[in-house]
Amino acid sequence: MTDFGIEDTYVGVMKAVVLGIAPATQLVDLTHGIPPQDIRAGAFALLTSFHYFPSGTVFCCVIDPGVGTVRRPIAVEVGTREVGPYYLVCPDNGLMGPLLEHVPAKSSVVLDNPTYQLPRPSNTFHGRDLFAPVAAYLSSGLSLTDVGTEISPTSLAYLDWPKPYLRNGIWHGSVVYIDHFGNLLTNIPARLITPPRLDWIVTVEGLEIRGISTTFAQVDSREPVAYIGSSGFLELAIRNGSAKEAWGVEVDQKITAAEPTNLRR
Amino acid sequence: MTDFGIEDTYVGVMKAVVLGIAPATQLVDLTHGIPPQDIRAGAFALLTSFHYFPSGTVFCCVIDPGVGTVRRPIAVEVGTREVGPYYLVCPDNGLMGPLLEHVPAKSSVVLDNPTYQLPRPSNTFHGRDLFAPVAAYLSSGLSLTDVGTEISPTSLAYLDWPKPYLRNGIWHGSVVYIDHFGNLLTNIPARLITPPRLDWIVTVEGLEIRGISTTFAQVDSREPVAYIGSSGFLELAIRNGSAKEAWGVEVDQKITAAEPTNLRR
Amino acid sequence: MTDFGIEDTYVGVMKAVVLGIAPATQLVDLTHGIPPQDIRAGAFALLTSFHYFPSGTVFCCVIDPGVGTVRRPIAVEVGTREVGPYYLVCPDNGLMGPLLEHVPAKSSVVLDNPTYQLPRPSNTFHGRDLFAPVAAYLSSGLSLTDVGTEISPTSLAYLDWPKPYLRNGIWHGSVVYIDHFGNLLTNIPARLITPPRLDWIVTVEGLEIRGISTTFAQVDSREPVAYIGSSGFLELAIRNGSAKEAWGVEVDQKITAAEPTNLRR
Repeated sequence: MTDFGIEDTYVGVMKAVVLGIAPATQLVDLTHGIPPQDIRAGAFALLTSFHYFPSGTVFCCVIDPGVGTVRRPIAVEVGTREVGPYYLVCPDNGLMGPLLEHVPAKSSVVLDNPTYQLPRPSNTFHGRDLFAPVAAYLSSGLSLTDVGTEISPTSLAYLDWPKPYLRNGIWHGSVVYIDHFGNLLTNIPARLITPPRLDWIVTVEGLEIRGISTTFAQVDSREPVAYIGSSGFLELAIRNGSAKEAWGVEVDQKITAAEPTNLRR
Repeated sequence: MTDFGIEDTYVGVMKAVVLGIAPATQLVDLTHGIPPQDIRAGAFALLTSFHYFPSGTVFCCVIDPGVGTVRRPIAVEVGTREVGPYYLVCPDNGLMGPLLEHVPAKSSVVLDNPTYQLPRPSNTFHGRDLFAPVAAYLSSGLSLTDVGTEISPTSLAYLDWPKPYLRNGIWHGSVVYIDHFGNLLTNIPARLITPPRLDWIVTVEGLEIRGISTTFAQVDSREPVAYIGSSGFLELAIRNGSAKEAWGVEVDQKITAAEPTNLRR
Repeated sequence: MTDFGIEDTYVGVMKAVVLGIAPATQLVDLTHGIPPQDIRAGAFALLTSFHYFPSGTVFCCVIDPGVGTVRRPIAVEVGTREVGPYYLVCPDNGLMGPLLEHVPAKSSVVLDNPTYQLPRPSNTFHGRDLFAPVAAYLSSGLSLTDVGTEISPTSLAYLDWPKPYLRNGIWHGSVVYIDHFGNLLTNIPARLITPPRLDWIVTVEGLEIRGISTTFAQVDSREPVAYIGSSGFLELAIRNGSAKEAWGVEVDQKITAAEPTNLRR
């Protein structure tokens, strides 16, 4: 996962480096379409995706506005008895912050062993010179402590990640990601509003959406719909249309969800 | 093939699901750039591509405006003695309609065996929860009847696919797909106008193009050209330019092709 | 590498053809985002990427404004004792010109053996019908002379590639590529300005940038910066912004780099 886009050769070159070290790697593009330097969008993309990957997967994630500064390059192993292990190789800038709230770090290292990096690394492309080779070596079976020096998982950068809160019976949340279809993904997890309540009211930008649906198809085409999205969070959309465009909404837009009786209190 | 685009993690997550089930799968992105919910564009993309893939290929195709409604999720085996077999996993919405006119379905099933789907499937992302795992199991060697219950191929959804027709010596067709270069792909197959006739006249939006060429290079740069495209259909283009932009043409634009003598009748 | 984009099925179909011939191929997209028919952008992308790939890599590169004309389809082996071998399969239009200035061609052939091409090749899609199958056969272990007839490497098309020059102590160069972030990549190689000189002045469109940095982080956010880029050339950028947009710069923009004393002479 990167914010490099796919117009240039940056992603292809990272893959070349990986395959030079670990020729049989199965490479998957999680996405390279994270908005440039948008750590929060990357963190959300990772949070809602990682558990679909086979255990043992190495995630090489480069959204790195601080490349060339003192931010640490790190590798982290996460997992529980049921989940993972997964390995993450990335800059220590909070990118894996929300994920770590769900699956604990078991060990973490700062990438300070030049043996497992490209010689004479550049100051501007650590994805190629540092993160890709380390990911390839981990994928080949090396351990975290081969590629770096242990650091405390508690020292990892924190992300100021918006959290939903309940006040006077009303859930307050915000849009944390907007997808390709213009659907709005919020930070309100399904468990707070499960089973979907057809009498609840969701508000966004003055608009009231009645009912939390289980599928788009519960509303007519071009109508607004609130529903439990496939990522496990409340989403707002326009069926067969773009909510982002229709409502002029951006990330960080505030939203609420509540029972009608609570709204009237 | 999907209409998910590649900005989000949807495609990456589908691949993760496939590789969790069938780790050695060779994954190929046919395209994820089908316009959202444009079943006809997807059908054309599939029709003109499938026979270049090795036999045994499993196509996982998700253009699915009806996700969460009663449209059936299906898997179909197609083939003849010379072609295929190929396996298609997709919603039953006509996406494979034009393909089935060329290569018959040998068997088809509705995907109703939850053993080969993700547990607790969502209502909005069957690509991940249903089509990807089934495609992976078929790719691993399971048979259609393992993953679903047989249905009659004659029951599969039909696509209202425009067909060219001949009237008074004039072929009438339409633009069915516009590519990245702005070239216009029509529904008139090469065999109707083979060998290319340099005296024929093709019309589009009041413009007359003289001659059906075998290559772009038969006209000067920035000139209009009609030719037998690499997909096996009549195409209209501007050499080294975009016909879509220059002529303001959209899908469904009517076109004609005829001998001059027929035009003058 | 192509200029086909990824909206259509062209790239997916090329991969299908490769896998039909060489099923175990590791496929890497270097990029398909080269601007349509921009041979120079493709040449730069190839020049700055190829040496990160494992030796033995076959590059299938299709930026081919002359498809269907007399330009020759070719395959070339390049390498030295330390570098490569690499194999390039492409139209003979200069696409590998700058690369050949760094790594010599050891042998080259014109692709004239139909055994290793698709039957009845189209006139408009040699990527699918000719370059992809040849690349697959080379990747499977066939030699250049299996797939074509030897031609002299000195006969290969030359690219009119802009070169930097020194006049009155001032280096004159130009922008040869603009990336996804809007960073400007120039044709001035690092060795001419190494070690980075903090007192040098770089000019572009009337703007003076003081100092050649080793990293973005040496300037504040939204400030212009000149630095040795990860591709090994002088680059100009706006930290956390787009130099292309801010300065209205296109490829071929002239730039200079000089010591202040030389500027004042």
